Amino acid sequence: MASQHTVRSYEEELRALEAAIMRMGGMAEGQLASAIEAVAKRDAELAQRTVQSDKQIDQIEQEVAERTTRLLALRQPMAADLRQVIGALKLAGEIERIGDYAKNIAKHFLVVNRMPGPQTGTLIPRMGQMAQEMIKEVLDAYSSNNPDRALAVWKRDGDVDELYNTQFRALLTYMLEDSRTITACTHLLFMAKNIERIGDHATNMAETIHFMLTGKRLQEERPRGEDAALIDLPNTSSPSGV
Amino acid sequence: MASQHTVRSYEEELRALEAAIMRMGGMAEGQLASAIEAVAKRDAELAQRTVQSDKQIDQIEQEVAERTTRLLALRQPMAADLRQVIGALKLAGEIERIGDYAKNIAKHFLVVNRMPGPQTGTLIPRMGQMAQEMIKEVLDAYSSNNPDRALAVWKRDGDVDELYNTQFRALLTYMLEDSRTITACTHLLFMAKNIERIGDHATNMAETIHFMLTGKRLQEERPRGEDAALIDLPNTSSPSGV
Repeated sequence: MASQHTVRSYEEELRALEAAIMRMGGMAEGQLASAIEAVAKRDAELAQRTVQSDKQIDQIEQEVAERTTRLLALRQPMAADLRQVIGALKLAGEIERIGDYAKNIAKHFLVVNRMPGPQTGTLIPRMGQMAQEMIKEVLDAYSSNNPDRALAVWKRDGDVDELYNTQFRALLTYMLEDSRTITACTHLLFMAKNIERIGDHATNMAETIHFMLTGKRLQEERPRGEDAALIDLPNTSSPSGV
Repeated sequence: MASQHTVRSYEEELRALEAAIMRMGGMAEGQLASAIEAVAKRDAELAQRTVQSDKQIDQIEQEVAERTTRLLALRQPMAADLRQVIGALKLAGEIERIGDYAKNIAKHFLVVNRMPGPQTGTLIPRMGQMAQEMIKEVLDAYSSNNPDRALAVWKRDGDVDELYNTQFRALLTYMLEDSRTITACTHLLFMAKNIERIGDHATNMAETIHFMLTGKRLQEERPRGEDAALIDLPNTSSPSGV
């Protein structure tokens, strides 16, 4: 039924969709990198630029949605191709959220940067780098059609959680020791939480990519660390002992 | 081309998809209601049950994904029907997240419930009720194919944000006044944030439904309040004056 020409242009359309996802992913990765660099170097101007660059990602998400709809309507893909197209739609949603969280990190930094109190230290940049590596890896898994690499990212989610827990406890200790740091620490808490969520979304992307490529779902429960925010802390009333 | 029989069963499939979304939405709404009731009545057992009921939502999301894929593959819907199917997929994703946030609220409550310090007061239940109403309204808009009702929900997002800001400031004040409340207040902060995010997702659903029904996108910038977490507070070092 389909001529050689049609087949080729269909594959071209799938590739264009993949390229749009990669571009969108690269943008989100860059946005997180900028946010983290702004934090590490205390660069308010860079943070400001990061906040503004979020609109581009939203635009590509729009483009992906349109490409997907057109592909589904005109090409009616089946089986693996259909998984690929629906997967792209899911990936675009995840990436859009990652960009959103990166923007939030920059926003919180801009507020905290104007305050006295503890600075971000090295943990937030370290968490950020880890999340950034996950995004890079998951995009590599996608572009190289490699489910094993997706699986490897999926297994790493616990690492970011662990750093988040350390950060959470450290911030509580600061607040308990010196109440003047409370407002600033609250922002740092949200920044850490935003990075932890980025890790979650990278893990969701890994799940989606694994399913796109293999048709098999990873088990529901991923191997993640406990959320420190959900664990009783031993010494909430004698903070200096923590 | 399509026989009467095929047409009817196609419509039946669309209706079954819509029914699955409604069921999933009702479950998430119920989960939020349980979480909020647990908080308001300090009912740990109810909170525990809420945490566990999250799995059902994930199962229906799976069902929606399968129905959608089958519909796309076998029926190849066009135009408005295609928007409806892709929209259902998006709605399922949003509802899944709402269930997730409701579960988190219950989890944070279980921790905070074992602690000394300020209780949740009435603001968190009020925020929760507001978010719950938004979910109810948005599901009504969906089931009655009414874009105006979706638009009305979309416009209400600022209300939850406003309550969240009040809550944020109140919690900072507690922490500043009495450092023994810091850990508990941190959990309340996350609970409030989770409800605020539920409001965001209800708003996303409203956008999706509006687009499904009209083919037109609401403007990008929704009319929302400022995030208090991102505003400098006037009196961070003399808290009793706040």
